[in-house]
Amino acid sequence: MARTLFEKIIAREVPANIVFEDDSVCAFRDINPQAPTHILIVPKKPIPRLGEAKAEDQSVLGHLLLQAAEVAARAGLDKTGYRLVINHGPDAGESVPHLHVHILGGRHMKWPPG
Amino acid sequence: MARTLFEKIIAREVPANIVFEDDSVCAFRDINPQAPTHILIVPKKPIPRLGEAKAEDQSVLGHLLLQAAEVAARAGLDKTGYRLVINHGPDAGESVPHLHVHILGGRHMKWPPG
Repeated sequence: MARTLFEKIIAREVPANIVFEDDSVCAFRDINPQAPTHILIVPKKPIPRLGEAKAEDQSVLGHLLLQAAEVAARAGLDKTGYRLVINHGPDAGESVPHLHVHILGGRHMKWPPG
Repeated sequence: MARTLFEKIIAREVPANIVFEDDSVCAFRDINPQAPTHILIVPKKPIPRLGEAKAEDQSVLGHLLLQAAEVAARAGLDKTGYRLVINHGPDAGESVPHLHVHILGGRHMKWPPG
């Protein structure tokens, strides 16, 4: 299977503005930001999309959400607020087939969410 | 601390259209749907918002995402796609102070996500 852009970012083969990394997740700025702060956080394990995660991925998914909140707090968004978004499949505009959580903040986010 | 609307839904004290429930999560239709399918899935544990989740909540958060994907698939959204949204704090329009994941599908979701 071809490696995705995000795998290449994690491997430092494609440059990105990485803001956080640990053994199982990596967070970097979206190159096409939709808000003053727009960061992506991804599991290092190449799960293509949420619907293909398995029961064995439960702990990495939980860690992904906990670290998304940490990254948002470190970006100064904890008090003002932030929106997390996961896109699955064509109706949601899923782009790169490597599970990723969008963290958006620094402005008022409207409703509906797209 | 006052119990939230979602705690009352889980306790069957407030009616809701519950579509899935297990020991640790409950999913029900949003009363103000923003897409043809709009379901909320919440942990039964009353975590006020993602930023207040603790390390000990990792497994329930992972389970929440896995079950969100299951609920979306059972709603027929797996192939067409769906968007998951978590709102934290005022800029995101967080409403009920009980962590919840929005599952939206059945139409094309625009970008940016609000």
